[in-house]
Amino acid sequence: MPQDDEAITTLAGQDGAIEETGRFAPRFDASGLMPCIAIDHQTGTVLMMAWVNAPALEATLSTGFAHYWSRSRNQLWKKGETSGALQRIVEIRTDCDQDALTYRVAVTEPAGTCHTGRPSCFYRTVPLGPGDLDRPLTFDDADH
Amino acid sequence: MPQDDEAITTLAGQDGAIEETGRFAPRFDASGLMPCIAIDHQTGTVLMMAWVNAPALEATLSTGFAHYWSRSRNQLWKKGETSGALQRIVEIRTDCDQDALTYRVAVTEPAGTCHTGRPSCFYRTVPLGPGDLDRPLTFDDADH
Repeated sequence: MPQDDEAITTLAGQDGAIEETGRFAPRFDASGLMPCIAIDHQTGTVLMMAWVNAPALEATLSTGFAHYWSRSRNQLWKKGETSGALQRIVEIRTDCDQDALTYRVAVTEPAGTCHTGRPSCFYRTVPLGPGDLDRPLTFDDADH
Repeated sequence: MPQDDEAITTLAGQDGAIEETGRFAPRFDASGLMPCIAIDHQTGTVLMMAWVNAPALEATLSTGFAHYWSRSRNQLWKKGETSGALQRIVEIRTDCDQDALTYRVAVTEPAGTCHTGRPSCFYRTVPLGPGDLDRPLTFDDADH
């Protein structure tokens, strides 16, 4: 949890606080899930945002390949098993309050990371400015 | 949603599909929230993962400074309002199925981004290998 979220700030710096512990204690949500951000290990590009539960995380740690929990199919999902865009894990990080993860990955078939055939799911920019959320998007498939 | 999530794959490439539309149509979850990843615009470092609702996103778009929804305080949260670590928005992206966002930001006081005083919330790595999730973490505060 980033700064300003004062309800948890009081824990910071205390021995044994979730922010300072040297033990991994992932905090899944009420559905048993946690957001996980996949990052290209070479470019640093954010490739996708997906969800993990404990079995997906255990499978990732034990195999060295990214696993997620598919909310739409309601099943464990080894990324790239059908597309070829496997994600070999380079590094996993947890955030301060241990309710989000990053996977730094090496992708075996980058063009297949997004189901649209793009290397990243974040290929559209949202223009800034006041007004309704309903506004045009700009397609930008370049690494960012 | 990344490749392999077949329930949604059938939409890809269809005119008007959420993946190919040029209109912003953010899909908030049942609680009205969406995960949002803040990225340093210069280094590409993932700084934090937080949540936005429609008012937070509208405030971000209209002011050019990152706003989130604080789940713990249950209120709109202008990042850095108390810490000084304001996040000026450089770019906003949405993902393929428009249920996650990235904010590329310029931070006015980087040391204050995480409430622990670190520039990123992702300062601990999780060692790979089989076994229980309960395992030691390694502190690594360097940019990654």
